[in-house]
Amino acid sequence: MEKRELTKLNAIGGFPEWLPEERHAELQWMDAIRSVFESHGFCNIETPSVEEVDVLISKGETDKEIYGISRLFEDREQSGQRLGLHYDLTVPFARYVAQHYGKLDFPFRRYQIQRVWRGERPQEGRFREFYQCDIDIIENEKLPLHLDAQMVLIVIEALEKIGIAGFRFHVSNRKILEGYLLGLGITDTQEVIRVLDKLGKIGERGVKEMLMSSSGMDEGLIEKLLAISRIAVPDATFLEKVAALGVRNPQLDEGLSELAQLMEGVKHVSQGRIIADLSIARGFDYYTGSIYEVQLVDFPKLGSICSGGRYENLTGAFINRRLPGVGISIGLTRVFSKYLKEGLIKTSRKCPTDVLVAVPSDSRRVLATEIGDRLRARGMKVEVYINSRGISDQLKYASKKGIPFVWFPPFEDGLSHEVKDMRTGTQAKADPENWSALT
Amino acid sequence: MEKRELTKLNAIGGFPEWLPEERHAELQWMDAIRSVFESHGFCNIETPSVEEVDVLISKGETDKEIYGISRLFEDREQSGQRLGLHYDLTVPFARYVAQHYGKLDFPFRRYQIQRVWRGERPQEGRFREFYQCDIDIIENEKLPLHLDAQMVLIVIEALEKIGIAGFRFHVSNRKILEGYLLGLGITDTQEVIRVLDKLGKIGERGVKEMLMSSSGMDEGLIEKLLAISRIAVPDATFLEKVAALGVRNPQLDEGLSELAQLMEGVKHVSQGRIIADLSIARGFDYYTGSIYEVQLVDFPKLGSICSGGRYENLTGAFINRRLPGVGISIGLTRVFSKYLKEGLIKTSRKCPTDVLVAVPSDSRRVLATEIGDRLRARGMKVEVYINSRGISDQLKYASKKGIPFVWFPPFEDGLSHEVKDMRTGTQAKADPENWSALT
Repeated sequence: MEKRELTKLNAIGGFPEWLPEERHAELQWMDAIRSVFESHGFCNIETPSVEEVDVLISKGETDKEIYGISRLFEDREQSGQRLGLHYDLTVPFARYVAQHYGKLDFPFRRYQIQRVWRGERPQEGRFREFYQCDIDIIENEKLPLHLDAQMVLIVIEALEKIGIAGFRFHVSNRKILEGYLLGLGITDTQEVIRVLDKLGKIGERGVKEMLMSSSGMDEGLIEKLLAISRIAVPDATFLEKVAALGVRNPQLDEGLSELAQLMEGVKHVSQGRIIADLSIARGFDYYTGSIYEVQLVDFPKLGSICSGGRYENLTGAFINRRLPGVGISIGLTRVFSKYLKEGLIKTSRKCPTDVLVAVPSDSRRVLATEIGDRLRARGMKVEVYINSRGISDQLKYASKKGIPFVWFPPFEDGLSHEVKDMRTGTQAKADPENWSALT
Repeated sequence: MEKRELTKLNAIGGFPEWLPEERHAELQWMDAIRSVFESHGFCNIETPSVEEVDVLISKGETDKEIYGISRLFEDREQSGQRLGLHYDLTVPFARYVAQHYGKLDFPFRRYQIQRVWRGERPQEGRFREFYQCDIDIIENEKLPLHLDAQMVLIVIEALEKIGIAGFRFHVSNRKILEGYLLGLGITDTQEVIRVLDKLGKIGERGVKEMLMSSSGMDEGLIEKLLAISRIAVPDATFLEKVAALGVRNPQLDEGLSELAQLMEGVKHVSQGRIIADLSIARGFDYYTGSIYEVQLVDFPKLGSICSGGRYENLTGAFINRRLPGVGISIGLTRVFSKYLKEGLIKTSRKCPTDVLVAVPSDSRRVLATEIGDRLRARGMKVEVYINSRGISDQLKYASKKGIPFVWFPPFEDGLSHEVKDMRTGTQAKADPENWSALT
C-alpha cells in the first residue's frame, strides 16, 4: 500500500475508538460494573463473537442489521456454515445454556461484558460495534418473583458506582398491556403492542393514525388504549389509576399484582427514580412479565441505556425445557460515549501508573530500576523513565500522563531519595521501603 | 426456525467457548497479566475489531486468512469501505498511533488484550478467534536498547504469575542472520531468511532442498548457513561460537553486541530458560533487531506461545515519522486451552462468590437479604439463594459451584448465625459484622 497522509486515516463510522485517557475511564467503569455483578454472585461467561446465522435469526430477527463474516478472496457460497457477528448477548446466552445445559448449575446467574455488532446507520448513541453488560438469572421450571426487584437493585447499584445519577428506571409488566387489550376485546395484541411501542418515537398522534389504518380501530377504543399508556407514577398509585379505567381481565390483574410487588421491593432505593410506566412495551422482545427501560433524565433523546425483563422460556428455540429467567443489559458504550461527549467524565489520567521513577543520569539507571522493583513489590504501579533525558522533560511527561508521583533517586550514593507530589507540587524525602502514596 | 435437538447445537470449529469454571480461570489469567502490565506503567487501549482491508494488508498480508464483514442480505459491492476483522493487534496499534499521533505522549507504552480472528483451518493451538495480550513501547527517533531486555523480564513475570513454569524464551537479533548472510556474499537475504524460518517445520533437510532449488546455493554454502542456525545457548557463549565460523560483517557484529546486551540484562532471571537461539528468524515479520519466541518445554509442537521483537519504524506504512519500538504478544488462548486440556488448571470454582447465604424459610428471606448486603458492604462476594428450598439442596448447590462458605441465618430471632466452611466441613457461630473468611 502507498503511504497515506495522516488525515486520510479516518475513524470508521460507528466503530468507536478511545484515546488512552478515555479508555482508562471506560475500563474503570467496566471494573466497577464487574465488581457489582460479582458481589451479587454472578459468574462471568463469554461466547464467541459469531453464531450460526440460523441461531441469530431464531428469535425472528430476519435482518440486514446482522454482519456476516467470510474469508476475503473466498466465495461466500463455498464456506459451509454461515456465520454472523452477534447483535446482542441474549441470543448467544440462550444458545449457550441450551448447548451446555447438562454442565451448568441452576439457578444459573451469569454476567457477560462483550462487544456486539449491528450494521445500523451510526448516529448519536447508536454504534455498529459497542459493549453491552448483561446479567441474567435463570432457573428450571420456576423463578421467584422477588428476583425481578433484585435485578433493578443491582443495576441501580452499578449505575451509581460508575457515577450515573440522573436516570429514571421505567418498569412495567407485559401482562398489564396484554390483559388490558384482551379486556377491551382486542385479540391481535401483538400487533397493537408493536404499534404502542412506537409512542416514544411517533407520539400519540402517530400511534392513533397507525392504529386506525392498520387495525381499523375506532377513536374511542384508541383513546381507551392511550389512557393506560399515560399512567406513569413513582409509587403504587398506578393500581388505582388502572382500576379507574374500568377494564377487568385476569391477566391484567396478575400483571398489576406483579408490578406492585416489584415496586414494593425497590421502593427503599427509589428516590422517585423508579417509575411504574405503563407505556413501555418492548414490542420486539420475548418478555412475558416484568419489563425494564432506563433513561437518562438530562438526555432523553439518547434512548434507553439499559433494558430487560422477565421471560418464561429463554431457550425455547433450542431445547424442550422450561427455563424462566430475568435479565437486564446495560448499554455501556452508549452511555459512556455520551458522558464523554458532555464532559461528564474526568479524563485526567492516561494510565493507572502511581509513580514515575526519574532517571537522573545513565549511571543511575540501575538504581532507578531497583527502586521500581521495590515499589512494585509493595503493590504500586511504577514506570521507570526510559532514558536520562533532562529532569524537566521527565516531569513534563509525568504531568501530561497524569501520573501523581515522581520519584527522584539520589544523584550520588549517600544522598536522600525524594518524591514529588505532582498534584500539590510538594517534594519530600522518602524511603522506598516504607513510602506510601497515602502518607 | 424449527426447534433443534440439543445435540445439533454444535460448537463452531475454531471459536472456543468455555464453561463458567473455565472462564473463571481464564479471567484470573487475564487479570494477572493485566496487573503485571499495569505495574510496569503500561496503559490500556482497545481498537475496533475491524480495520479497513487496505490497512490490514498494508504490511504485505494479502490474505485469505482475513475475515471480511458485510451486512447479511446486502450486496457486498454496495457497502463503501471494505472492512475486515483484525488478525493481530500490531497492525491496529500501528494505525492507532499514526491516527492519534498528536494526542499521544511518548514514550508510549500500551498494553492491549483483545480477540483477533484468522480464517485458518482449526487445529490444536490454532483458533479462528483467540485472545492476544500485547505490550509495546514506542518512542520518537530512538528507543534505548535496555528496553529489549525489559520486555523479556515483564513477560516472564506475567508467565510466572499465571503459573506457566516450563517455558523457554528464545531470543536472537535480526541483524545477526542478515549480517551473516551478507558476510557470506548472499544478497537476497529476505528470501533465505524466509526459508530458514521453516527450520522448525521442515527440518534441516527440507531447508537444504528448498535453498538448493530456489536459490541454487551449493551445499558448502548451505552448510555454513545451517551452522549458525545450530547455535542455541543459555548464555553469552554464542559470541565465541559465531566467531569460530569465521564470517565477518559490521551488521553481524552489531547484532551480536545487541544480543549480548540483551542476555546480560536478563541473566538474573534466566535459570537456563532464556536461550540465545540463532535459528529463530520470524521471517514474515517486520522486526529489525531483537526477536523473541517462547515455547513450552513440555509441548514443543504447540508452536510459540509468545512472540515479538524490535522494529525500527512501526507506523511506516501510515505516516512519515520514525517511531522505533519493541513489543511482545502473549498468545493467551493457545496456552490457556492447552493447559486446560492437559488438566494443568484448577477449575474447581464456577464463580468468584465467597459466601452463599442460605434461606431457611420464606419468612427469613428478608433477613438473608440483609446479611448479604452487610457482607457485601464489607467487600465480600455474596449470593443469597433464590428460594427456601431444602437446606441440603442449597448446600449441594454451593458445593457444586465451589463456593467456599455457606451462611446460615437463624431459624428464629435470638438464635445465632452460623457459617459452614465447605472445604473443611466445620461449622461455627458467626457475626455478620465481624466474620471474615480468613478467621
